[in-house]
Amino acid sequence: MKAIVTVMLKNGVLDPQGKAIGHALHNLGFPQVGEVRMGKIIELELAETDAAKAKTAAEDMARKLLANTVIESFKVEIAA
Amino acid sequence: MKAIVTVMLKNGVLDPQGKAIGHALHNLGFPQVGEVRMGKIIELELAETDAAKAKTAAEDMARKLLANTVIESFKVEIAA
Repeated sequence: MKAIVTVMLKNGVLDPQGKAIGHALHNLGFPQVGEVRMGKIIELELAETDAAKAKTAAEDMARKLLANTVIESFKVEIAA
Repeated sequence: MKAIVTVMLKNGVLDPQGKAIGHALHNLGFPQVGEVRMGKIIELELAETDAAKAKTAAEDMARKLLANTVIESFKVEIAA
């Protein structure tokens, strides 16, 4: 079973990487770009057959290691 | 209109970051974790009302800046 953990900076936390990407896109000729935010995506292959258990485990991993919950929020999706 | 670009290493390309996360999760007491792959997610706010045009523009940005298409693949989703 595959769990996909998406980690993004919380709203209000400055995102210099996103800002840099925004500037670069403007310079490359994409004036339509407004705010840009960048995050991480972590795909975990889990030896688990129960989707609910897999989700709980992945959320636990996100809290313990993958996300810094002071400044980042995370979301877990389970794919078959 | 919001475009979400997901950039992952192609299959077969070594992912040392993912490997490190996998080891760390094992050490933290998650033996059920198998392969781990890590990628980037970029949320773009676009001044565009047409979803098809927004998608084309975001794909163009991904090819020109966001993804290294030699080793990375990308996916664009449009959110309202």
